[in-house]
Amino acid sequence: MARMTSYKEPFLQFIHKLQDQICHALPEEDDTAVLTEDLWTREEGGGGKTRVINGGKVFEKGGVNISAVHGKLPASMASYLQTDYSDFFACGISLVIHPLNPFVPTVHANYRYFELYDQDGRLADQWFGGGSDLTPYYLFEEDVRHFHRTLLGICNQFDDSLYPAFSKACDNYFYNHHRQEARGVGGLFFDRLRGNSEHDTRFWFDFVTSCGNAFIGSYLPIVQKRKDIDWTGSHKFWQEIRRGRYVEFNLLHDKGTLFGLKTNGRIESILMSLPATVRWEYNYHPEAGSEEARMLEVLQHPKSWI
Amino acid sequence: MARMTSYKEPFLQFIHKLQDQICHALPEEDDTAVLTEDLWTREEGGGGKTRVINGGKVFEKGGVNISAVHGKLPASMASYLQTDYSDFFACGISLVIHPLNPFVPTVHANYRYFELYDQDGRLADQWFGGGSDLTPYYLFEEDVRHFHRTLLGICNQFDDSLYPAFSKACDNYFYNHHRQEARGVGGLFFDRLRGNSEHDTRFWFDFVTSCGNAFIGSYLPIVQKRKDIDWTGSHKFWQEIRRGRYVEFNLLHDKGTLFGLKTNGRIESILMSLPATVRWEYNYHPEAGSEEARMLEVLQHPKSWI
Repeated sequence: MARMTSYKEPFLQFIHKLQDQICHALPEEDDTAVLTEDLWTREEGGGGKTRVINGGKVFEKGGVNISAVHGKLPASMASYLQTDYSDFFACGISLVIHPLNPFVPTVHANYRYFELYDQDGRLADQWFGGGSDLTPYYLFEEDVRHFHRTLLGICNQFDDSLYPAFSKACDNYFYNHHRQEARGVGGLFFDRLRGNSEHDTRFWFDFVTSCGNAFIGSYLPIVQKRKDIDWTGSHKFWQEIRRGRYVEFNLLHDKGTLFGLKTNGRIESILMSLPATVRWEYNYHPEAGSEEARMLEVLQHPKSWI
Repeated sequence: MARMTSYKEPFLQFIHKLQDQICHALPEEDDTAVLTEDLWTREEGGGGKTRVINGGKVFEKGGVNISAVHGKLPASMASYLQTDYSDFFACGISLVIHPLNPFVPTVHANYRYFELYDQDGRLADQWFGGGSDLTPYYLFEEDVRHFHRTLLGICNQFDDSLYPAFSKACDNYFYNHHRQEARGVGGLFFDRLRGNSEHDTRFWFDFVTSCGNAFIGSYLPIVQKRKDIDWTGSHKFWQEIRRGRYVEFNLLHDKGTLFGLKTNGRIESILMSLPATVRWEYNYHPEAGSEEARMLEVLQHPKSWI
C-alpha cells in the first residue's frame, strides 16, 4: 500500500482561516454581536479556540469553534469507531448560530478531519466528515432553495452523485425520531469520506474545504433578507417551542454531542449549540392553516428543495 | 415456591387515589392553576390519565400522571430488565411540578409497580420502585430539612436502614455527570424492591404507598412558605439557567425518560417533565458569595440533610 499523505496541516489551516472569515462576516450583519474568545487545552492532548456570540440584535447566541485534539484513543471512541488503532488526531470547525428574529433560521455546520495511527506511529487511516443544515421557524421557500442550491452547486463541481446522497443522509440524521419530524429543512451530511478507487483523499479534502468555504454565501444572504422583519410575541413563542425541539435533538440524538460528553469533552463548547431562551408547552399544536402549521407540515413531511 | 400474591389491584387503587388527592391539594395553593385531563390508550395494551398544570401563578407547569400498561414485553425492555419472561404489567404515578416563583423548589416523585408473567400467564416476578426529590433554585436549609425529615420519618417507620440507603441512591441517580453537579438536593430513590427473607412483598407495598401518601406533606408546606416572596428578573434568570440543567438531566441521563422514548411511550406525557421557560448561557457562573453561588456550592458538594 502506498504511504498515506497526511492532511493535518492543510486542514488545520483551513479551519483556522474559515473561523476567522466567519467571525469577520457575522459582525458585518450585526454590529451589536459581541464575539468573545476562549482558548482551552485538553489535558490528554490538544485544545481549541471557542468563539462565542452572545446577546446580539441579529445573532442572539452561537459559537464558531475550532479544535484539534490528539493522543490515545479513549475506549468509548475506539469502540464507536470499531478500530484497534490506539492513537488518533482529530480537528474540526463547528458552528451553530441562533438568531434573535424568529424569521431568520438557525444554522449549523461542521467540517472535520480524523487520523488514526498504528503502533509504530504511522498514519493508518484518515477521513473527513461534516456538513451544514438549516432550521427555520417560518418557511420562506426561496431561502431554503437558496441554501440547498448553494450546496448543490458545490457538490456538482465534484460529482453529481454527491448532493443526492449527502442531502438524503442529512434528512435521515437530523430527525427527531421521538417526534417523527425533521429538526430542520436539511442540507448536507457526510462522514467517513475516505480515499478510494473512485476518489482519492485529495478529492475529499477539496470537497470538504469547498463546502466550508461556501458556508457564508449559503447563509448570510438569508440573514440579510429577513433580519429586519418585525416580529411579535407569538412569533417568539413559536420560535422558542421549536428551539425546544432543537434541544431535544441535540441532547437525545446528536452523536457529536453525546460523544463529546462521553469522552470528557469541554462541556461549555459542546453545549454552546443550545439556544438562549427555550420553551416547552404540553401538547402544543399550531392552529390549522397558520404559518406555524405550514412550517410543521414540511418538517413532518420533508420534501426535496431542488 | 409459594404462589405470589399480585398487588395490581391495591396498587392501582393507590395511584388513582393519590392522583386525585394531589390534584385536589395543588389548586388549594393556587386558584389560577388549571388542571386539564387527557385520557390516552396504548395501542399494545393499557393507557393512562395525564393531568397537566399550565400557567398557574404558583404552579407554572407540571403534571400528575398515572398509567397502567401491559402486554408483550418490548425487546428493549426485556434486554434492560435482563429477563426471559415475555409478558408484563406496569403501573405507576409520576409527577413533576415547576413553580413560577424562583424561591419555590421544583419537585418530582414517582411510585411504580411491575409484574412479569411466565409462559403460562402465571405471576413470576414483581417489584416496586420510585421515590421523590427536590430541586430548589435558592437554598432555604430549613425547607430541605423539612423535605428530608418527612422522608426519614416514613422510612424509619419501616426499617432504620432504608433512609440512608435510599437517600444515597437518590444522590447518585439525580446527578448530572457531565456537569459534575447534583440536579437537586436529593430525597429518596429505590427500585427492584422485591419480597425477600427480610421483608416480604407486603412490606414493600406498605412502604412505597406510605412514601406516596407522605408526598403532599413533604412538599406543600414549602410552597406555602415561599410562594409569595417577591422576585426579580435576575432571580428568574438564574431559575431558567438551572432549569436548563434539569432539562439536560432528563434528556441525557434519566432512565425513565429515555426508556419511555425508546419503548414508544406517549411523548407528551413523558416530556411534560420539562419546565416552561428555560435558558442557556455560555459558560455562566454566578458571582462569588451570591445566593446563587451558595446554591451551586451545595449541588457541587452534596451534603447530608439529617
